[in-house]
Amino acid sequence: MKVNVKELRAFCTGVFVCAGMPENEAGIFTDMLLHADMRGVKSHGVMAFERYVGLLENGNMAKKFNYDAVADNPVVAVWDVHRSCGHVAGYYAMIEAIAKAGKYGVGFVGVRNSSHFGAGAYYSLQAANAGMIGIVSSTAGPTMAPWGGKEKVIGNNPLSMSAPAAKYPAVTLDMAQSTVAMGKIMIYKSQGIERLPAGWAFDKDGNPTEKTEDAYSVTPIAGYKGVGLSLFIDIISGILIGGATGGRSGDAASGPSHTFIAIDPPAFGLSLVDFMAQLDDRIQEFKSSPKKDGVDEIYMPGELEEIQYAKSQIEIDVYDYIIDQLNAIADRFGYKARLSGL
Amino acid sequence: MKVNVKELRAFCTGVFVCAGMPENEAGIFTDMLLHADMRGVKSHGVMAFERYVGLLENGNMAKKFNYDAVADNPVVAVWDVHRSCGHVAGYYAMIEAIAKAGKYGVGFVGVRNSSHFGAGAYYSLQAANAGMIGIVSSTAGPTMAPWGGKEKVIGNNPLSMSAPAAKYPAVTLDMAQSTVAMGKIMIYKSQGIERLPAGWAFDKDGNPTEKTEDAYSVTPIAGYKGVGLSLFIDIISGILIGGATGGRSGDAASGPSHTFIAIDPPAFGLSLVDFMAQLDDRIQEFKSSPKKDGVDEIYMPGELEEIQYAKSQIEIDVYDYIIDQLNAIADRFGYKARLSGL
Repeated sequence: MKVNVKELRAFCTGVFVCAGMPENEAGIFTDMLLHADMRGVKSHGVMAFERYVGLLENGNMAKKFNYDAVADNPVVAVWDVHRSCGHVAGYYAMIEAIAKAGKYGVGFVGVRNSSHFGAGAYYSLQAANAGMIGIVSSTAGPTMAPWGGKEKVIGNNPLSMSAPAAKYPAVTLDMAQSTVAMGKIMIYKSQGIERLPAGWAFDKDGNPTEKTEDAYSVTPIAGYKGVGLSLFIDIISGILIGGATGGRSGDAASGPSHTFIAIDPPAFGLSLVDFMAQLDDRIQEFKSSPKKDGVDEIYMPGELEEIQYAKSQIEIDVYDYIIDQLNAIADRFGYKARLSGL
Repeated sequence: MKVNVKELRAFCTGVFVCAGMPENEAGIFTDMLLHADMRGVKSHGVMAFERYVGLLENGNMAKKFNYDAVADNPVVAVWDVHRSCGHVAGYYAMIEAIAKAGKYGVGFVGVRNSSHFGAGAYYSLQAANAGMIGIVSSTAGPTMAPWGGKEKVIGNNPLSMSAPAAKYPAVTLDMAQSTVAMGKIMIYKSQGIERLPAGWAFDKDGNPTEKTEDAYSVTPIAGYKGVGLSLFIDIISGILIGGATGGRSGDAASGPSHTFIAIDPPAFGLSLVDFMAQLDDRIQEFKSSPKKDGVDEIYMPGELEEIQYAKSQIEIDVYDYIIDQLNAIADRFGYKARLSGL
């Protein structure tokens, strides 16, 4: 059903406060969930609210953001956030990366012992909105097998990159290293759909399967290349900052580990205005190039999400069962307001 | 035929000198070609010698390395190399990136107005051999269409990443953002093979084709994700450093534009010994995980190339027609020695 964004914002913030979060952190956390929903990325929106509240309740997510700086250098910092909310930690880490990049051209902040940080696009867009290129990645619990293997050993580690343009919205590529998310296969399972599209999953023996019930691991993008890309995210977002990879990076273990990189064009001899103008030109070149039959428009990475976001300023669509879930959580915490459709 | 590596090294260096290169630069250039051949990456080995000599002759590649530092900051530098040899420029740029990373944890050197730089693995391995993570990318002439388009607008921009381990060789992922190189389709064409494997190419209308003669553009890896990855290489290795993208980045135009990034573990609070030990553990976890039927060993990215390299210290295989090509070039320059097989 349609829900008023302002009402949903007050509701989620209020419930997070009831669950023990400071109000400003509850507000940051909520803003990211709504940002995902408003961009049409429902999997990382309020659909995950129940899961996050559960982590706050069972102690796998600290109620208040806190960290020790394991490394604190001009360009590089590493924070151990002691299982703080990944969203809040990521928000502050990108702010720090942007500050460092403003001085040295590059800022690189690693965050370890975190929790699920939601949609990476939020953080890379923080950098783009500050006139910088943002690069964000995270380790994740294992859903993919090594190339040639059959056991799940590595996550489909997300990578998000954004760059600011002027005439056009920032370009944002937010992608996992698997063909589809394991969550999508779970939805097929829960809906009793027996066949998966070809190329989505491997079975327990490491062979391709289209039977939903036999799906065990998700396929990496582009075969060995996707495993390789995920491994390098393990290396840079995990090992390099002393964080967890593979089976150790789940919510119930050490938690994932993230990196937030900001890059500031002026350090490269290019004013921000010139950078944005040249990216505009390149976008224009893409969008004005000949389309194949049946295609009305060529969209840049993240453009459809920006269009959806612009349309979602007042209200968004939320599944009825999620509204029920949210209201039940409010009940549990004795939070007074209830969500209702428009 | 089998060729002695030492003889081939002296030969290529000698001919490059005859073509006008200083001896030290001819040596660096040759080392990279042999490095590719020794790793089994023939496309970037002496197979490309004739092409490079042609660039030296027609003036699209400067005979002597020279550059202006467009930006020269503690962490970031950008060099305009005025169409110098991409291999030589890249070699020096990675040395500079490593020096910067040694002080600040990250070093980032952009090189614009360059020429084809060969195999990215050489440079990322320079960093790994210095105990750092190396990330290298380059813009390239257009071989792929935007997602939804049909005209070639973007290159399959290569990305190479290496990380040092202790018990195992460095992990190296050197990949283009297309399913196959356009050069591979050209080989099919030249050999009269009429059918391409499914998923390699699009025709002039942007539709998938398996007819070799109809192949017009190569498919991006993972659909829109591959185009997006290539676009971000355009942004970071091209636009950010004032370099050329798409149709402007060819050998006969402005030439490609590259980035060389080095990342030094100690700045992240981790000694190199600990970093390598933890990467060893992760490699071990991959290699010891259960294999699917018919698989004898799980290889890490770059491992097969390292095995080939170790086997190629004395001699390598070079196609007979390439040997003939090399000898003909020597004739042309009046270089005395001739290559013969073993």
